[in-house]
Amino acid sequence: MKHLNLYEENDFAEKAFKKLLVHDSPYFKIINFNFKAGQELPVHNHDIEGQLSLVIIEGEGEFLGKDNATIPAKAGDVVISEISEPHGLRAKTDLRLLVTIDPQSTVGADLQEDSASGLTAE
Amino acid sequence: MKHLNLYEENDFAEKAFKKLLVHDSPYFKIINFNFKAGQELPVHNHDIEGQLSLVIIEGEGEFLGKDNATIPAKAGDVVISEISEPHGLRAKTDLRLLVTIDPQSTVGADLQEDSASGLTAE
Repeated sequence: MKHLNLYEENDFAEKAFKKLLVHDSPYFKIINFNFKAGQELPVHNHDIEGQLSLVIIEGEGEFLGKDNATIPAKAGDVVISEISEPHGLRAKTDLRLLVTIDPQSTVGADLQEDSASGLTAE
Repeated sequence: MKHLNLYEENDFAEKAFKKLLVHDSPYFKIINFNFKAGQELPVHNHDIEGQLSLVIIEGEGEFLGKDNATIPAKAGDVVISEISEPHGLRAKTDLRLLVTIDPQSTVGADLQEDSASGLTAE
């Protein structure tokens, strides 16, 4: 059983959203993105089979989809998307997002370079 | 892209924790459990390969493990467990938990009968 707290392990940065690789296994990849108000994860997609979930832990913003579609995003929101479907997020307040991707793979690896593993084994 | 809000789609019950099936696909199963203070998901495990994540959306409690082990649980906590590893949760305050299981399968189906699909397609 491995354990971490998103509030303790990841913070915010003025330059761009801050990414924390929470978990990566043959089963799924879990990534936490923290956005300062105004920052965004641009709409993107990957041409592979699979799905991802986007969970808003804290904050408000908008989910982004294809053709400039937006869905209001707030704490407790869960979005399920095909990995091949365009998806993104724009923060209106400081916002914490948790993304779970299956299959893991290289999805998300291209989004920002300064990720870090925050896992502690217990 | 499918969207729901955990605060809007699931509430609490005096009798036992309240379960909401958020998503079930060949990729993963996502279940939201809401606990009133004092309610618990007893320690259990399933003898299959795979992993699950436990994410505390709101509230405080304890993650439960084998041999009566406990880990304090609070908002923003993420626990990764093998499905075969004993795991559970006890709430000290009203608590919202989001569980993602891969592979999906019948895991979680035995925990409570009154689940409901809360998905809305957009």
